[in-house]
Amino acid sequence: MTDRPQTSANSMWGGRFAAGPDAIMEAINASIGFDRRLYAQDIRGSRAHAAMLAATGIIEGSDAEAIGKGLLTVLSEIEAGQFAFRTDLEDIHMNVEARLKEIIGEPAGRLHTGRSRNDQVATDFRLWVRDQCDAAIDGLTALIRAALSQAEAGANWVMPGFTHLQTAQPVTWGHHMMAYVEMFGRDLSRFQDARRRMNESPLGAAALAGTGYPIDRDMTAAALDFDRPMANSLDAVSDRDFALEFLAASSICAVHMSRLAEELVIWSSAQFRFVSMSDKWSTGSSIMPQKRNPDAAELIRAKIGRILGATVALFTVMKGLPLAYSKDMQEDKEQVFDAADTLMLALAAMTGMLSDLTANRDRLEAAAGAGFSTATDLADWLVRELGLPFRDAHHVTGSLVALAEQGGVDLPDLSLAQMQSVHGQITQDVFNVLGVHNSVASRQSYGGTAPAQVRAQIARWKEKLA
Amino acid sequence: MTDRPQTSANSMWGGRFAAGPDAIMEAINASIGFDRRLYAQDIRGSRAHAAMLAATGIIEGSDAEAIGKGLLTVLSEIEAGQFAFRTDLEDIHMNVEARLKEIIGEPAGRLHTGRSRNDQVATDFRLWVRDQCDAAIDGLTALIRAALSQAEAGANWVMPGFTHLQTAQPVTWGHHMMAYVEMFGRDLSRFQDARRRMNESPLGAAALAGTGYPIDRDMTAAALDFDRPMANSLDAVSDRDFALEFLAASSICAVHMSRLAEELVIWSSAQFRFVSMSDKWSTGSSIMPQKRNPDAAELIRAKIGRILGATVALFTVMKGLPLAYSKDMQEDKEQVFDAADTLMLALAAMTGMLSDLTANRDRLEAAAGAGFSTATDLADWLVRELGLPFRDAHHVTGSLVALAEQGGVDLPDLSLAQMQSVHGQITQDVFNVLGVHNSVASRQSYGGTAPAQVRAQIARWKEKLA
Amino acid sequence: MTDRPQTSANSMWGGRFAAGPDAIMEAINASIGFDRRLYAQDIRGSRAHAAMLAATGIIEGSDAEAIGKGLLTVLSEIEAGQFAFRTDLEDIHMNVEARLKEIIGEPAGRLHTGRSRNDQVATDFRLWVRDQCDAAIDGLTALIRAALSQAEAGANWVMPGFTHLQTAQPVTWGHHMMAYVEMFGRDLSRFQDARRRMNESPLGAAALAGTGYPIDRDMTAAALDFDRPMANSLDAVSDRDFALEFLAASSICAVHMSRLAEELVIWSSAQFRFVSMSDKWSTGSSIMPQKRNPDAAELIRAKIGRILGATVALFTVMKGLPLAYSKDMQEDKEQVFDAADTLMLALAAMTGMLSDLTANRDRLEAAAGAGFSTATDLADWLVRELGLPFRDAHHVTGSLVALAEQGGVDLPDLSLAQMQSVHGQITQDVFNVLGVHNSVASRQSYGGTAPAQVRAQIARWKEKLA
Amino acid sequence: MTDRPQTSANSMWGGRFAAGPDAIMEAINASIGFDRRLYAQDIRGSRAHAAMLAATGIIEGSDAEAIGKGLLTVLSEIEAGQFAFRTDLEDIHMNVEARLKEIIGEPAGRLHTGRSRNDQVATDFRLWVRDQCDAAIDGLTALIRAALSQAEAGANWVMPGFTHLQTAQPVTWGHHMMAYVEMFGRDLSRFQDARRRMNESPLGAAALAGTGYPIDRDMTAAALDFDRPMANSLDAVSDRDFALEFLAASSICAVHMSRLAEELVIWSSAQFRFVSMSDKWSTGSSIMPQKRNPDAAELIRAKIGRILGATVALFTVMKGLPLAYSKDMQEDKEQVFDAADTLMLALAAMTGMLSDLTANRDRLEAAAGAGFSTATDLADWLVRELGLPFRDAHHVTGSLVALAEQGGVDLPDLSLAQMQSVHGQITQDVFNVLGVHNSVASRQSYGGTAPAQVRAQIARWKEKLA
Repeated sequence: MTDRPQTSANSMWGGRFAAGPDAIMEAINASIGFDRRLYAQDIRGSRAHAAMLAATGIIEGSDAEAIGKGLLTVLSEIEAGQFAFRTDLEDIHMNVEARLKEIIGEPAGRLHTGRSRNDQVATDFRLWVRDQCDAAIDGLTALIRAALSQAEAGANWVMPGFTHLQTAQPVTWGHHMMAYVEMFGRDLSRFQDARRRMNESPLGAAALAGTGYPIDRDMTAAALDFDRPMANSLDAVSDRDFALEFLAASSICAVHMSRLAEELVIWSSAQFRFVSMSDKWSTGSSIMPQKRNPDAAELIRAKIGRILGATVALFTVMKGLPLAYSKDMQEDKEQVFDAADTLMLALAAMTGMLSDLTANRDRLEAAAGAGFSTATDLADWLVRELGLPFRDAHHVTGSLVALAEQGGVDLPDLSLAQMQSVHGQITQDVFNVLGVHNSVASRQSYGGTAPAQVRAQIARWKEKLA
Repeated sequence: MTDRPQTSANSMWGGRFAAGPDAIMEAINASIGFDRRLYAQDIRGSRAHAAMLAATGIIEGSDAEAIGKGLLTVLSEIEAGQFAFRTDLEDIHMNVEARLKEIIGEPAGRLHTGRSRNDQVATDFRLWVRDQCDAAIDGLTALIRAALSQAEAGANWVMPGFTHLQTAQPVTWGHHMMAYVEMFGRDLSRFQDARRRMNESPLGAAALAGTGYPIDRDMTAAALDFDRPMANSLDAVSDRDFALEFLAASSICAVHMSRLAEELVIWSSAQFRFVSMSDKWSTGSSIMPQKRNPDAAELIRAKIGRILGATVALFTVMKGLPLAYSKDMQEDKEQVFDAADTLMLALAAMTGMLSDLTANRDRLEAAAGAGFSTATDLADWLVRELGLPFRDAHHVTGSLVALAEQGGVDLPDLSLAQMQSVHGQITQDVFNVLGVHNSVASRQSYGGTAPAQVRAQIARWKEKLA
Repeated sequence: MTDRPQTSANSMWGGRFAAGPDAIMEAINASIGFDRRLYAQDIRGSRAHAAMLAATGIIEGSDAEAIGKGLLTVLSEIEAGQFAFRTDLEDIHMNVEARLKEIIGEPAGRLHTGRSRNDQVATDFRLWVRDQCDAAIDGLTALIRAALSQAEAGANWVMPGFTHLQTAQPVTWGHHMMAYVEMFGRDLSRFQDARRRMNESPLGAAALAGTGYPIDRDMTAAALDFDRPMANSLDAVSDRDFALEFLAASSICAVHMSRLAEELVIWSSAQFRFVSMSDKWSTGSSIMPQKRNPDAAELIRAKIGRILGATVALFTVMKGLPLAYSKDMQEDKEQVFDAADTLMLALAAMTGMLSDLTANRDRLEAAAGAGFSTATDLADWLVRELGLPFRDAHHVTGSLVALAEQGGVDLPDLSLAQMQSVHGQITQDVFNVLGVHNSVASRQSYGGTAPAQVRAQIARWKEKLA
Repeated sequence: MTDRPQTSANSMWGGRFAAGPDAIMEAINASIGFDRRLYAQDIRGSRAHAAMLAATGIIEGSDAEAIGKGLLTVLSEIEAGQFAFRTDLEDIHMNVEARLKEIIGEPAGRLHTGRSRNDQVATDFRLWVRDQCDAAIDGLTALIRAALSQAEAGANWVMPGFTHLQTAQPVTWGHHMMAYVEMFGRDLSRFQDARRRMNESPLGAAALAGTGYPIDRDMTAAALDFDRPMANSLDAVSDRDFALEFLAASSICAVHMSRLAEELVIWSSAQFRFVSMSDKWSTGSSIMPQKRNPDAAELIRAKIGRILGATVALFTVMKGLPLAYSKDMQEDKEQVFDAADTLMLALAAMTGMLSDLTANRDRLEAAAGAGFSTATDLADWLVRELGLPFRDAHHVTGSLVALAEQGGVDLPDLSLAQMQSVHGQITQDVFNVLGVHNSVASRQSYGGTAPAQVRAQIARWKEKLA
């Protein structure tokens, strides 16, 4: 082992540092305040390491047994809240090791054979982030199910399809929900890819150069459910791109949630009233009964800021660091801890909010039909059925919209005679594409908004999740 | 009062919310976990408000007195660690108010007259950030003093002036230190400007529209040491650019510290050995005596990531928020808290590290003279004294350097005869600009590296800080 | 002069570089593609420098005259589009100098006496950014005027005051517009502060150490309208925080515009219809007459991304750079150029859009009154006039709202008898605070939404801008 | 087709917009200045669409043929530099379409059947980004080969392995190079994953809802080498996470390059002299022969700022955008264009720089042995061979180092007798692990720095790339 920081308060170090660390240095240097979250990963890693040391004959089996048992005692103490974390021991690794020594005595000193704090911390943190990938995958699966439920209920409910927050064409509620299913589905696959890529074991890289002990890195990798050991010991202790990739995937996922949250905030306004929020996820005013503040949606919308901020933080920290380990890298954990907590909370809140959401079907349908939203359908019909050139079809449609507008009616309310007064070849068949239900039903192209298409996608996703 | 979020667990709200908030909503919604840090500001603001309510006759003097006294009791309870913060009361404001009611009973209900939680939180947070500006100004002043001490000690110590991390020209240690004094001095003025700009009182903006009570906003502004009340109540509750400006100023300051920290890390390497770190700010190896890990410098270098991340986070949160208050804005505090804590800690650590730093004067001087670092001085002398065109002077210098290189000596070691063999008009006077001490002494232009110039700047700064 | 990069294609350099630069190095290294924008600043700086060199006797007056005249010729060539920029000359400084030599011959070589490319580029860029501060101040002034015009026209038009995008209390259009006047006013002062702080001259810092020539830095500073020369030559060539501060101020300003833009997008929706966009700033559909896409507002909303991105870019570039000049700093210009262009364009577009905006006064008023938006006023009246404790007033208000809701009417439509059935002491006077006009008129606290308050603030701003 | 923006200058639109767009709107709205880069993708997509329209009988085969041929003419005009791009036609799509109409007349109008500008731009941009993934994969492959060449040449050259920029243990040059091979290898797999995930076709999503034309989306997907059509038309036109993921992967890759670049800058310093840069990638001083500015390395180091800035920009733009298309999204392209250009340039420059780099083997070896860098090996030997407890071994090592330090020698220079004076059981065998070559040779653990291990990894990578 090479490179344990020492302080005069830390009795494992000799007398080189005449001056004791003062409060500032302790405050900036100690990590036990946050890295205690790695206790389970630290103990799991140490147990795997000890077992391997015994299996390869590097230490005695009896020592390994004592270590393994002692570590379980430490684990149970921590989980029972009976463990006294000490700042003067700086980090979780020294805290665990010091306590282990108290419990089992001398054999504790053999645990650190053939490893270093550098590969130990890299292993612990990687295990932790891997767990967060799993949590994100679980959270996304639940969120996708909630969106699927909404989609299934409203596969044929019509609503405005917006561009620029202006009604463009009618779509269905189910179709809109399924757009988010696709987004969250990609998020899920992104966390799967990240997990697969990070699933290599740093353990055994030692300080940075590997070790002369005849360790078996495949054995510890397998014990920790890693696919294989990392192939370069310098890389193993200096790489943090598994954290960067986790943060990037989290940021993209948070963007998706911010978009849905924004829609929910707008849809909850008195002017839209497209949805009604459950009391569980909003707050009200005791004297203004209609007021329903979409607090959860607003908070979720804000979370992209927090997660993106953490992402920028770690990218900036890692910029320009020489190999292998620099102390700067101690800044990695808090950012990832906060981003992961934020992501999981936002996923859970969004899942709950979406599950409890009531779409105001009548308001959606009325809004879908306003503003001559099926004018495009009419123009397309003229091209498709009458063979009009595109620009001519546009011109005829404009005239028919003007006619309807003058009459204060919508397009489907024009009579065939009125239609034919603008273009003689129009037939009764045109009414099959006018009106919002006809419009959405006609969009039968793959992935289109027709209820049949939406239901096919729902079915595909249900099978996928089954 | 308009718009207090209510939950079934919060008895002040009626029965509109049949469903209770579950753990997720509480976790995402409650702010007491972090906004308790505003307790002193909250109580100070409430006391100013109560006094004003009495002075304007809006409430009875006896009520105001009870409120004021009760709030001091709450304050002392919190500071004594005897206050039980309740998550079900969501935030610091409700926690204080609820406890006040327990202590003084009915008059507590009058405190909230003519204000709202929106202007209350805006006031509290602004007071807190204003305090951080003051702390940053203090921290920067201490850091400037530390840099001035280093500059004064080494006003005439020569060292390499680098461009591209390549020696360009000799400079003095004092000059290098004074460059940071200038940077930190601008930082200081940036916090002063930010403080001045934010020093307006939101109190009295009420929920967003002002109030019909005959409140006196000038009075509360004065009581809280604000320069004036904010001029628009909507702006008062929706503005967070005082926080953004604080974060931006902190980020610039952190960039400056990251540059100095990077230099200290490089200068501490075995290859440079320009400085020796104090044991207080570095860690070593018990078996490798030369090893001295510059932990504090590395951690400070990393802090720009953390502060920039917080900055990005709040900018992203604030993007596109409609007026006036949105719940998204609850994300403002943790980012600013963390950035401010980080900044103050980094300032303190940098001040300590710089105070304890030992420059290795011999190494610096040796490095300053290597690589024909005074070739520029020679070329300038040829132009200035002999009137050579710039390009000719360059050519002559190149030849002299080549001559010295062949002889394995430095420029000042050439004889006058050797010099004159390259250009006949060169005189003994040339040696006055060769050699690193002559070189730096010659840079007499304002702000140049000549020790006299450096000392003049040190004197100016000492007077400024006096 | 020390440290000009040389390439084999650049004839000013000798033969040290046997290998020619290939296309990749030219692509990554040359800056003329973007720094040509600094041509006016470069020529202005060089003219000031030449005049000073003559005044101090460092060069002949006739040479300075030739240089000054020649530089004006170069300037006119560039402005006439007749200048052939050469990539092999790498940057604007070498391009100008090379052309100057073609025009005036040998004296051109004397221009670079006592300066270096390092202080030259620092001066040019600082002058450019200072100009952008002025442009931002002008742009903000125009935007404030546009907002003032809107505020003046609608000082007493009522509209909903939102929190959480839910109606909270009625406010006036003028009050809402004045909130942005305050924000843009702070932006303006931020650019003024930044301008003042950056208004120091780097010229004369030379490569990094100052110079032995008897230059007069005060003279060049004055000629370039700087307040003074920078006090440390190392700082002068390595500082870029004037650019960072400009970017930070631009980001805050862009956040403000993103908020207004978001409101305009939402207000333009078919569901809100609070405003009508001018055709100049929106696009429509040839067949859907109501559709009016608020393109300009959406694009402005997006610009915070672009400007914040540039800000993060430069902060990240500057992180951890040792003094003095590193080539990394060449990345400063494109980010600032793009951010400045973006900011000025967004300011101009927002000014135009706001000037041409039509508020739909009827829709605003109708929305302002919906949802019992004056319930708060009623509760306040009960406290203020009847002396009810706050919580009791809340309870009475809740009952009255329920009564109105049952009757399908708004609060002002209740009869006095109905009111008294809930609380006997209510008098006719209560109707003075009900109804949206009464409500806003009652908010007479300083900075409140009462039209009289709004008009007072408009008058203050008009005087300030006069 | 629904939603083409129209301007009075754009004759395809009717007279709804009385007012012409002024210069500001054109400047902020038109995208032809940058989206012309999509011309090849636009034409490829249109050709696939036209062929499908004919195959499905939606348009005549002769029309499709005319369109296909006409588009090739447009393509050749653009590639020959003979195409006059018109700003009044706003974007690349309208420019191409308008020119097509000039060339082939009326059939051009049929091209847009069953698609919209929304799915067209989504398709074009996705194709472009997919090409950039391929370019990144190619660039990374070349860079990995360059690093492998360095590793192979110096598989057994010793150098210091650093932590905190302090020598920790000896490693080999090959091992250090292979650490970057691992990083760039992960980057490569990240672009592969991103490519696979984005490889779905948006074409046929039309404006946002799909279309009523019997289009065959599988056919166009196949023609464009997409794996399948996207499954939700709303998602297809509103998704930009393929761009976000590309930016995130680019940022991680740029972090890796910034680390290597930082090392090269430091290693090039006069104090380190670990490497010599080729003249192709550095610049010098005509009068200071040792000066070799590592310009390319510094510029590459800076590029993480630029790419991270672009990443933050697009994340911020996308935050909170409602479905489906908002004009904000027009800000996507310039960020990705710039980031992709920057990445490819940096990859090429890094590949060139690394290929031309000369390691100063003697300097590396001398530095590797300084500072008792094999003290760890000694301590490990004591544990491993003599069975000393870890702490005792540490103590003995400290004493031996002290002995060597007193004698002014390195550890391998101590005699066996001297060694045994500290601990009697030490044998001649200890010298097998002292000395830097013995030290590195002993690190035989998988992924360790032993030359045999390094060569095994080189072989694995060569096979992988073959």
